[in-house]
Amino acid sequence: MDPGTSRIAVDLLGGDGSPAVVVDGALRACRADPDLHLLLVGPPDVADEVRAALPTGQRHRITVRPIAAVGRSGRDGAGRPDAAPTHPVRPGARPGSTIAASVAAVADGTADAVVSAGSSGEIVTAAALGLGRWPTVRRPALVAVVPAVAGPVVLLDVGASVEARPATLAQHALFGAAYAAARLDVARPRVGLLSIGAEPGKGDRARRGADSHLRTSPMAADGRYVGLVEGHDVTLGHAADVVVTDGFTGNVLLKGIEGAYAMAGGPEPGRLAPRAATLLGVAGTVVICHGAATGADLASGIVLAADLHRAQVTASVARSLDDIARTLADQYEVSP
Amino acid sequence: MDPGTSRIAVDLLGGDGSPAVVVDGALRACRADPDLHLLLVGPPDVADEVRAALPTGQRHRITVRPIAAVGRSGRDGAGRPDAAPTHPVRPGARPGSTIAASVAAVADGTADAVVSAGSSGEIVTAAALGLGRWPTVRRPALVAVVPAVAGPVVLLDVGASVEARPATLAQHALFGAAYAAARLDVARPRVGLLSIGAEPGKGDRARRGADSHLRTSPMAADGRYVGLVEGHDVTLGHAADVVVTDGFTGNVLLKGIEGAYAMAGGPEPGRLAPRAATLLGVAGTVVICHGAATGADLASGIVLAADLHRAQVTASVARSLDDIARTLADQYEVSP
Repeated sequence: MDPGTSRIAVDLLGGDGSPAVVVDGALRACRADPDLHLLLVGPPDVADEVRAALPTGQRHRITVRPIAAVGRSGRDGAGRPDAAPTHPVRPGARPGSTIAASVAAVADGTADAVVSAGSSGEIVTAAALGLGRWPTVRRPALVAVVPAVAGPVVLLDVGASVEARPATLAQHALFGAAYAAARLDVARPRVGLLSIGAEPGKGDRARRGADSHLRTSPMAADGRYVGLVEGHDVTLGHAADVVVTDGFTGNVLLKGIEGAYAMAGGPEPGRLAPRAATLLGVAGTVVICHGAATGADLASGIVLAADLHRAQVTASVARSLDDIARTLADQYEVSP
Repeated sequence: MDPGTSRIAVDLLGGDGSPAVVVDGALRACRADPDLHLLLVGPPDVADEVRAALPTGQRHRITVRPIAAVGRSGRDGAGRPDAAPTHPVRPGARPGSTIAASVAAVADGTADAVVSAGSSGEIVTAAALGLGRWPTVRRPALVAVVPAVAGPVVLLDVGASVEARPATLAQHALFGAAYAAARLDVARPRVGLLSIGAEPGKGDRARRGADSHLRTSPMAADGRYVGLVEGHDVTLGHAADVVVTDGFTGNVLLKGIEGAYAMAGGPEPGRLAPRAATLLGVAGTVVICHGAATGADLASGIVLAADLHRAQVTASVARSLDDIARTLADQYEVSP
C-alpha cells in the first residue's frame, strides 16, 4: 500500500441525514483525495451504494464492516452486531453500534482514523474506552479550527465534556498549542483563555484557577500564554492563535458563530465555520462531524482525518504533552 | 415637562473611548430624539462641550451633575465627590464614581434612567445597592436583543453574573419572557434554555436542574418553555424568542456573534449585533453599553433607555414577576 494512503473508518449511520449524507460525503471525499481508502461501517447495502457509484477500477478503495441497521448511531444504540464474532469490540463499547465498531477498526489496525457524525458523547466515550486515553489525560477535548480575520483560530473544547475545571482547562491549553503547531504550522502559538473580559481576574472561579496555573506553567510547542481573551477574539483572531474554554461554552460559541456566518455569508465567501472537529486526548485519530452535517461537511471531515493521519498530528500532540510532563518531572527531580 | 420627555443620566467617564465617545453619543441621541433631556454625570468641562455643540434654544435639555475627572469609571473609582454634599450616594455605592452618581440620580428622582459604558460589574453592584433589587431576585440579569433570521431574539444573562445556578437560570427565563412581551410585543413568547444539544438531558448539572424546574413552573407573560436550544438558535431565531443562559456563556456568545457579524457585515446591512444591554432585576431603568462602544453605540443605548422608560418596560417586567409569585402563593395557600 502506498505510504500516502489513508484508510478511514466511516460511520454510515452517524448524523441526522444518515445514511444518505454519509454516502454523498464518502463519494465526494474519494473524488477529492485519490489516496483515500474507506472502511464503511454499517449496513452492507448502503456501503454497496458507495461502491457502485465509483468507476470499476476504483472500487477496491471501499471495504465494508457490516453492521445491520436497526437505528441511528447515538440515538438508540443501532444495529445488530453482525460483525461481532470476527471484529470483537473492546469491553465497555456498545456492541452493535457503528460508532464502537468504527473505533474498533482503528484499535485493531484495520483503519488509520475514524469519522462519525453520530452523538459526540457516545463517540468520545467509545474512543476513550476503545483506544485508551493519553497518560495524565482525564478529559479528552474536541478541537475546531475557526476561520477568523487574522487567520485560523484553534478553539477547544467544543463539546467533549461540559464541566469547567481549572486543571482540565490548563491541560487543554497544551493540547491546543501543540495542535496549532502540528496541524497549522503556527510557530510559538499564542494561547488565550476565554473569559468575559481581558483584564486579569475576569471570569468565574474555574477561569481564575486556570489563569493562575497557566501563568506559571510551561506551554507546549514553544507556545506562550497570553492571558484572558473574549468571544470576539475567536472570530477576529488578533489576540491569540488558540482559545481554550470548557466544552459547554465552546460548543455554544461555535454553533453561535456558525449560525452568524450562515446568515451573513461567512467571513469570506465559501469560508464557513467548521463542521468537523478533532478529538484529542485519545490514542488514535478521531474526527467528529456536526450532527446536522451535509455531504460536503462529511467529505471535509474525511479529508481532515486523512490529513491528520498523514501528518501524524495526534501522535505529535501526544509527544508534546509527554515533553511537558518530562520537563516538569526534571524540575522536581531531587539531585543525587 | 412634556409627558413624552425622558431624562437620562449619562456616565461621561464610562467606556474605553470616554469621554469623547460619550460626548459624541449624547449629541447623536439629542438629535435623534427631540424629547430627550440628558443629565450628564462627570467633569463639567466635558458636559459643557455637549451643551456648546447644541443650538442655543436646545441647551436647556442638558444638565450636569459635576464629578471631577480623576480616572475612568470602573477602572480606578474615578473622581473626587464634588457633588457628594448635595447628592449623597447610598451606602455601599462608591462616592465619587460617575457610575454611583448616575445611579443615585435615578434613585433620587432627578433622572428616569441611567446609561453607562463603564465596568458592567461595577454598574450592576451600584444599581443593586443604589436602587434595590426586586423582591425574590438574588441575581440581576443583563438582557441583549440579538438580530436573528426569524426576528429579534432576547438573550440573557449576557454578563451580570458568572456562576450558573438552576434557580437563577429559571428566574431569568421569566425576566426574558416578560421583556420580550413588554419591549418587543411578542405574544406568548417561546423561551429556550441554551445547551449543547436540543435533546432532553443535554448539558451540565445546572442546565438539567433548570430544565426540570422550567418544565413544571408557570412562565411569565403567557409565554411557554420550549426546552433546550443551541448556539445557532440565537442567530437563527426559529426555535425561541427568548434564550436563557448564564452570564459567562451569554457574554462569550454575544461577543462571538458580534465579532462574526462585524467580519461578515451583519445579518442584513446595518443590522449589527447589539452594543447596549438592559439590566433587569433592579428597581430602575439601567442600560449598560459595551466597554468598546462608539458614539453611535452610546446614542443607541441612550435612545434605548428613553424608550424603556416611556414604555415602562422595567416596571412591567417586575409586575409579571409579581404575578407569577402570587400565582405560586395561591397554589400553595391552605384553604380555611
